[in-house]
Amino acid sequence: MLTLEFYQKKFHTYLYQYIQSLHHQSPAELYQPIQYILNTEAKHIRPILCLIGAHLYQNNIHKTLHAALAIELFHTFSLIHDDILDNSTIRRGKKTIHNKWNTNIAILSGDVLLVEAYKILTKYTDKQSYHLYKVFTQTSKEICEGQQEDMNFEHLNKISSQQYLEMIRKKTAILLGAALQMGAITANAPVSEQKKLFQIGQNIGLAFQIMDDYLDTFGNTKTFGKKVGNDILYNKKTFLLTKAIEISKQKNKYKELHCILNMPPSVKKIKDMKSLYIELNIDKLALSSAEQYHQKNYQLITSLKVKNTQAKEMLIKISDNLIKRQK
Amino acid sequence: MLTLEFYQKKFHTYLYQYIQSLHHQSPAELYQPIQYILNTEAKHIRPILCLIGAHLYQNNIHKTLHAALAIELFHTFSLIHDDILDNSTIRRGKKTIHNKWNTNIAILSGDVLLVEAYKILTKYTDKQSYHLYKVFTQTSKEICEGQQEDMNFEHLNKISSQQYLEMIRKKTAILLGAALQMGAITANAPVSEQKKLFQIGQNIGLAFQIMDDYLDTFGNTKTFGKKVGNDILYNKKTFLLTKAIEISKQKNKYKELHCILNMPPSVKKIKDMKSLYIELNIDKLALSSAEQYHQKNYQLITSLKVKNTQAKEMLIKISDNLIKRQK
Repeated sequence: MLTLEFYQKKFHTYLYQYIQSLHHQSPAELYQPIQYILNTEAKHIRPILCLIGAHLYQNNIHKTLHAALAIELFHTFSLIHDDILDNSTIRRGKKTIHNKWNTNIAILSGDVLLVEAYKILTKYTDKQSYHLYKVFTQTSKEICEGQQEDMNFEHLNKISSQQYLEMIRKKTAILLGAALQMGAITANAPVSEQKKLFQIGQNIGLAFQIMDDYLDTFGNTKTFGKKVGNDILYNKKTFLLTKAIEISKQKNKYKELHCILNMPPSVKKIKDMKSLYIELNIDKLALSSAEQYHQKNYQLITSLKVKNTQAKEMLIKISDNLIKRQK
Repeated sequence: MLTLEFYQKKFHTYLYQYIQSLHHQSPAELYQPIQYILNTEAKHIRPILCLIGAHLYQNNIHKTLHAALAIELFHTFSLIHDDILDNSTIRRGKKTIHNKWNTNIAILSGDVLLVEAYKILTKYTDKQSYHLYKVFTQTSKEICEGQQEDMNFEHLNKISSQQYLEMIRKKTAILLGAALQMGAITANAPVSEQKKLFQIGQNIGLAFQIMDDYLDTFGNTKTFGKKVGNDILYNKKTFLLTKAIEISKQKNKYKELHCILNMPPSVKKIKDMKSLYIELNIDKLALSSAEQYHQKNYQLITSLKVKNTQAKEMLIKISDNLIKRQK
């Protein structure tokens, strides 16, 4: 029986080898921060999706490890630079690179990591490499755009839920899509299958973010792992808030919403916003939206023409778990 | 008769089209700074070398424009991020991006430019694209390493002239090598020719930097275009200084050199250091080192098995001009 741990272990072994290989690279000032951040605990959902994307179509997924690593390195590059942009001091329980070293080191080690991600893709045949680059460069470009949109949104008042979802799609969801598709490319899967896999990954990403937004307000602190209500405290644009703005206008409740948004951070602010969300059915709307992505995915996954049905079950399970996590 | 302007004009037309195409890309916050910096006046020596690298082996260099653009975009990305690292406020007579906008915008528009550079290479056939990526990713990685070494050198006292040249080779020279080689790849030139072209470009870069260091001390302010003596004022590590440290030790003049290095910036400091350099024959050494690279290049270029002898003459002329510029 295939387990998540099977893929995780496979990837960890390869990642560890890669981290070890960086010991011999110089200058150390550039590669030590990379070893440091790659050594932090992470779920590695993206490389795992990449391995599954290949495993659906062929048994031997050893060669797919390069693409899986490329995706993880790209993701890590984006974390290093995002942490500078957001001035975050802690990531995965450890100091961020610009905090532990300095901004210059963080910029440059991020840059070299992005280059490393691309470099690894030359380990494939010219045909596979070419297709991997096509998907990976387009995805990378849109992720940068999504990151900039996210920064823009902080200073804008009127963001529709559609704009919010489009930003999330670019900033985080498409990398999950690309991970699955790139895995499929390494297994020479047909283009029609690749396209479905991209959709599936993207849907997982969107559903995940909607659930993340939901849980930040309606989750259980113990099981969610983060403090509940943080998004409300700082008027963070989320699926809930952008939807609430739209619906409150239709239901003549916008003044009430506006009033809560103008409140300083407090327990009362969280309580009032939660009540308003419930009154406007935003909680149910978020859950049903996430569920819709999940349903779409179920259809898409079952329509895949795969060889390995166990890998298929695994993919359904991952899509499932992300939706059903600690409500 | 082929002229530098012929290649320049060809590239400018293509670059202008590219800049125009960015108007339609969003978010504007990401693409406006890129348009801004690409619109500043530049010599475009790298894309020109790329076009020549192809022209040596085939008449039609239209398709080489993509690779030439990729190289220019990469170079521009490195300028944007280097300007943050060095805290430079002016570049090519205009405000740097982090100065005109902010550091976050500069980081992110640099990132997307790097991605764009890679993305353009998918415009080739899978075979060409693969070879281009191999050269380009290896080159990019070493450029990042060179940049970090340069930052390290600022805080180190003992840098040998060999270490200095190796840093310069990585930081600036190999991109000229890659430009020529990538041009040759787009023209399907044999690997043996490609390797020679990489060497030629690298030698041009090294000779250029040695001459730049020479002219900063021994140049004529009017023809050099920059204020002479700046490197001496701030003890900047250059070919001259690293060589002078080595030779002064052999000739028991290190105390004298050390004394000048400890002087605060002044006209006297420049005068004293110039005298010591001349006493130690550093000026002649710099000129003969640059000349050696030039001689090597002359041999390499004449040994190329090219179709287009005019393009070959052009390459000799470029190599010539960089050495013989305003002594």
